Amino acid sequence: MLRVAIIGASGYTGVELARILCNHPEFTLTAATSRQYAGKALSEVFPNLLGKTDLICENLSINELCSRADLFFAAVPHKTAMDLVPQLLREGKKVVDLSADYRLRDVAIYEEWYQEHSSPEFIAEAAYGLPELYRDQIKQARLVANPGCYPTSIVLALAPLLRAQLIDPATIIVDSKSGTTGAGRSASVGTHFCEVHDGFKAYKVGGTHRHLPEIEQELSVLNGESLRISFTPHLLPISRGILSTSYANLTSTVSETDLQELYTDMYANEPFIRLVPSGSFPATQHVRGSNFCDIGFAIDSRTNRIIVVSAIDNIVKGAAGQAVHNMNLMCGIDETTGLQGAPFFP
Amino acid sequence: MLRVAIIGASGYTGVELARILCNHPEFTLTAATSRQYAGKALSEVFPNLLGKTDLICENLSINELCSRADLFFAAVPHKTAMDLVPQLLREGKKVVDLSADYRLRDVAIYEEWYQEHSSPEFIAEAAYGLPELYRDQIKQARLVANPGCYPTSIVLALAPLLRAQLIDPATIIVDSKSGTTGAGRSASVGTHFCEVHDGFKAYKVGGTHRHLPEIEQELSVLNGESLRISFTPHLLPISRGILSTSYANLTSTVSETDLQELYTDMYANEPFIRLVPSGSFPATQHVRGSNFCDIGFAIDSRTNRIIVVSAIDNIVKGAAGQAVHNMNLMCGIDETTGLQGAPFFP
Amino acid sequence: MLRVAIIGASGYTGVELARILCNHPEFTLTAATSRQYAGKALSEVFPNLLGKTDLICENLSINELCSRADLFFAAVPHKTAMDLVPQLLREGKKVVDLSADYRLRDVAIYEEWYQEHSSPEFIAEAAYGLPELYRDQIKQARLVANPGCYPTSIVLALAPLLRAQLIDPATIIVDSKSGTTGAGRSASVGTHFCEVHDGFKAYKVGGTHRHLPEIEQELSVLNGESLRISFTPHLLPISRGILSTSYANLTSTVSETDLQELYTDMYANEPFIRLVPSGSFPATQHVRGSNFCDIGFAIDSRTNRIIVVSAIDNIVKGAAGQAVHNMNLMCGIDETTGLQGAPFFP
Amino acid sequence: MLRVAIIGASGYTGVELARILCNHPEFTLTAATSRQYAGKALSEVFPNLLGKTDLICENLSINELCSRADLFFAAVPHKTAMDLVPQLLREGKKVVDLSADYRLRDVAIYEEWYQEHSSPEFIAEAAYGLPELYRDQIKQARLVANPGCYPTSIVLALAPLLRAQLIDPATIIVDSKSGTTGAGRSASVGTHFCEVHDGFKAYKVGGTHRHLPEIEQELSVLNGESLRISFTPHLLPISRGILSTSYANLTSTVSETDLQELYTDMYANEPFIRLVPSGSFPATQHVRGSNFCDIGFAIDSRTNRIIVVSAIDNIVKGAAGQAVHNMNLMCGIDETTGLQGAPFFP
Repeated sequence: MLRVAIIGASGYTGVELARILCNHPEFTLTAATSRQYAGKALSEVFPNLLGKTDLICENLSINELCSRADLFFAAVPHKTAMDLVPQLLREGKKVVDLSADYRLRDVAIYEEWYQEHSSPEFIAEAAYGLPELYRDQIKQARLVANPGCYPTSIVLALAPLLRAQLIDPATIIVDSKSGTTGAGRSASVGTHFCEVHDGFKAYKVGGTHRHLPEIEQELSVLNGESLRISFTPHLLPISRGILSTSYANLTSTVSETDLQELYTDMYANEPFIRLVPSGSFPATQHVRGSNFCDIGFAIDSRTNRIIVVSAIDNIVKGAAGQAVHNMNLMCGIDETTGLQGAPFFP
Repeated sequence: MLRVAIIGASGYTGVELARILCNHPEFTLTAATSRQYAGKALSEVFPNLLGKTDLICENLSINELCSRADLFFAAVPHKTAMDLVPQLLREGKKVVDLSADYRLRDVAIYEEWYQEHSSPEFIAEAAYGLPELYRDQIKQARLVANPGCYPTSIVLALAPLLRAQLIDPATIIVDSKSGTTGAGRSASVGTHFCEVHDGFKAYKVGGTHRHLPEIEQELSVLNGESLRISFTPHLLPISRGILSTSYANLTSTVSETDLQELYTDMYANEPFIRLVPSGSFPATQHVRGSNFCDIGFAIDSRTNRIIVVSAIDNIVKGAAGQAVHNMNLMCGIDETTGLQGAPFFP
Repeated sequence: MLRVAIIGASGYTGVELARILCNHPEFTLTAATSRQYAGKALSEVFPNLLGKTDLICENLSINELCSRADLFFAAVPHKTAMDLVPQLLREGKKVVDLSADYRLRDVAIYEEWYQEHSSPEFIAEAAYGLPELYRDQIKQARLVANPGCYPTSIVLALAPLLRAQLIDPATIIVDSKSGTTGAGRSASVGTHFCEVHDGFKAYKVGGTHRHLPEIEQELSVLNGESLRISFTPHLLPISRGILSTSYANLTSTVSETDLQELYTDMYANEPFIRLVPSGSFPATQHVRGSNFCDIGFAIDSRTNRIIVVSAIDNIVKGAAGQAVHNMNLMCGIDETTGLQGAPFFP
Repeated sequence: MLRVAIIGASGYTGVELARILCNHPEFTLTAATSRQYAGKALSEVFPNLLGKTDLICENLSINELCSRADLFFAAVPHKTAMDLVPQLLREGKKVVDLSADYRLRDVAIYEEWYQEHSSPEFIAEAAYGLPELYRDQIKQARLVANPGCYPTSIVLALAPLLRAQLIDPATIIVDSKSGTTGAGRSASVGTHFCEVHDGFKAYKVGGTHRHLPEIEQELSVLNGESLRISFTPHLLPISRGILSTSYANLTSTVSETDLQELYTDMYANEPFIRLVPSGSFPATQHVRGSNFCDIGFAIDSRTNRIIVVSAIDNIVKGAAGQAVHNMNLMCGIDETTGLQGAPFFP
């Protein structure tokens, strides 16, 4: 059994990592850190884990951490991650970092959208943890930058079209909607039940969300040259789930059958991509609790646009599940291990 | 007191009309029809109305109806409406029709998207009941075609931009999200609580929703020539509310201040349009239960697009409230009568 | 127009008071205080109020407050209220206090459940603001202690039975369920959307909720001698609404018709009590946004118990609406003024 | 691999059985029947199952059914079950019946609450499928009557107290709250999203719910003699989960520690019972998606009552999960097989 630890276990990504790992047949969870809850049982912080883990939340030094595990999930905020991760790597550990700190390959862009980077020398070696696009690099990596939730839902939806140059990159508009786990677990008026429930709103309108440079980075790679998109996130009154609706002008006349083949060619062997049947569309409730990304599309022949709809569970495929997928790949075990549960519906 | 009747009182639009009308100081509700619930107290069908109305649901002939009221809200499905409305008009009654039957000025388009029209001769005289655009016609009309909920939220959002020719009409994309009252009250698996709750999905993807020709009709009028847009509706796990996110390329360089002035010029005196402060954006929970349409926008300077966000309560401003607004105008009374309640939050 | 002020406008009770008062024909809202939001427009804190009020939140001294209004709604936490209210009374103002500070007539009980009382000399003159039981006192009062939300729903449900000595007071068990507005608007992990949504829990189990002595005080008055009950509150994943299910053993054989008469005798002329038809039961969604308390019951002949179900909107009849009702009574105006809106459904 | 079939796969219990079984290492799902959806892929009816099963819904005769599987989950309505189950048994099959048809040992009581029984001769041999109470019988049985969801949550909560004669059986009152999956998947106005969402109500008040005789049967066995209770079900605006709050008078003075020992003695080795830490209480969101029953309690020393709170996922421990648990026992495999997933939170 490989010893794994969760650094930053008190958030929604932390509890989801713990949920997955407590049933993982190859990894054993040996430590869970939390400054806020140090000394408390993890199952007291998250009573869903009662009987599934006896771990106590701890506030551990790097040395203590390194003595306790070989593999690390860093589920701490950006900035904290870039100070921590290099210390783990220098001790020969493998790390999946769930923050934004190693996702952007151009440090200047990182520093424009976030803050000064304290360990830019590790950016180059970080694999971008989207297995469908970077499986080989991930297998070789000791550091994987786990993708953001919005980017995961969007890049997977548009990848086949951009690779095939079937859409005009200047016309891409993405309208995304996320469940409230995406806002984290910190207490704030904005995430109070009564502010979110029975409501819906847009936020970070006008191209100001920090996931935007990450989305553009990956779409630009697929496109072969730099592109810019419009991206608007919205807050859904649900806990889990992102649904992204992506629009782009088609560059040539294609049939729905052509597009089905295009997507099938790219994704038929991917264990966590499901192409929904023609005429149906993804829904967040159909991927809930699973590592699946569901994708469907329609051609709007009246305007010559394609609309692609993709859905993920933002804390599974958009965070904890994809992190375990990456760790499986880094450790050379079957990549679906621990992630085979069917989605919960209803 | 003017005598009004609701034809088709058993749906969500019907109950909302009754809620508004039972406190309206100028109208008195004299009849509520329902085949399904004939003989039952309206407050038994909708217990929120207990103590607010003693009306019994009835199944009335046209003659009976005409003897009971002077003004009619037709809250029946399309097709039923076009058979019924002419009979009321011929008896000298005023009608606000909440169906789609008189909204489309081109009967050929109506018949393409719906079915054969049995009373096309009345289409020409129907005023399109969006008071912000057609107030004068509405005041003169004996028949008002009450707009669809999606069109209301979209046309109001884009009208100032199109009139000023500030956006490229070929680039308009509208991504709308509606609460489940929009699906009506008929029992179906698709509207079962467990299918909708804690989920989110797109539907009618690819330009197939019947509100599309209505939206394009009105946007084309504003644009001065015919246009086509992409429109994708989504289903929200909330009861009331539509939020539409509209995207278009700007045709010239404008500042946010310019746009604030543009919207203020058009809407400053409109009693039911609220322009939200710069930097903030509408939310469905802030218009809940009211006749307001809230509008906000941002310029995405990276892509030279404008994103307009608009929110309404779909069964008030998108249906019953706008219908009462229209009836007020048709009757020459203060147009805000009965509609001045503040939105409910939370 | 009478000048009224809200002290503590930034909570859910505050915004609901503002919503009601901005359409009240006899009161004009002249001030809204908030330390946290001083200087901000009230409609910026609560965007539902945009266009309905231009008030700016202020942090006012007592002198400033007293110069601005004649009537005060104190919507501040207990402890703060008991320091503030006496100063307003001494200046000749009328006050409806929405905290717990003047509800308990026995200061020893208050101090057992809360803390030391700084102005016990005002307790005796405070009217308990349940108009159905204390209308005459309220009309004469300059200080009204607005009841708690749970007590309102429970005392109204059981009053006719206790007065008629039809139930054994030693057997009363009340199981109550409240929407999350009841927890206030302060940010906390426990009220985070994701902690409450799609879930349900009990809290303060075992007779430890601070509303318990208030409930027992009022039930004891009705009973004619002191009683003790079991009371368990639960947290519902809804914003507004309390539903209380009360159980007690019947002391004699009564028919459902007898009980209908009993309730009708007590409540037939009460403007805000609705007795639901026999065989049906209240639901929170049928009182949403209104000042109604709906009551229904069933006899369980197998166990000789009566089960009474009552529902209110906790921030209307359980707080802001009842407060306005009380202020109407204190000012000698029609008691239903400003409170006649029908509930919102759905 | 043992071949299992689901009879009646189109309801919420059916899809949950399929979700569990598609990852079960000892059972292979070989057939799923549905009249309504015959010919459709099960993953088209329930898109969460896409990629997890290729089964097509079928309408099979008994002979066909028997040729396809050795073990059967009957997830059909009562009445249908009692006609079907005997035919399967006569062919030597094992059956877990999820209907009410074989739960009540006294056929007269069954016929009083349901209808005439067509196969009463099989009642005696049916094991009542609550493994914590009937494990040995279940292991020997060819027919298991899977308990109702409410009874599961209530009987497990009260069993230790009744066995130890620590409560007065005449004083038991149970107030239960269920998620909407409990109402089944058939379309009806009552389960329409907009009727349930953001609301809460009681139903079957006064001892009229059909689960009552089942609850009383099992509590009477534990009590050693017949008892009657008051039971009120309520409808929660959540999909999954039942929380039952049970009240009873204590017959002697016991400490909380005594009771902790009592519950621990009975449940310490039960794989699916979790006793929550003293001072905390179960919540439906902490058992969501799992086969756990969480139990907590408090002593109300003011009234000498005990309040026990229990929570289950009604379609797992209250239906499909418990059915798989029973089938595991009937087949002699590790009873937790396929049921070890941790609950989903949030």
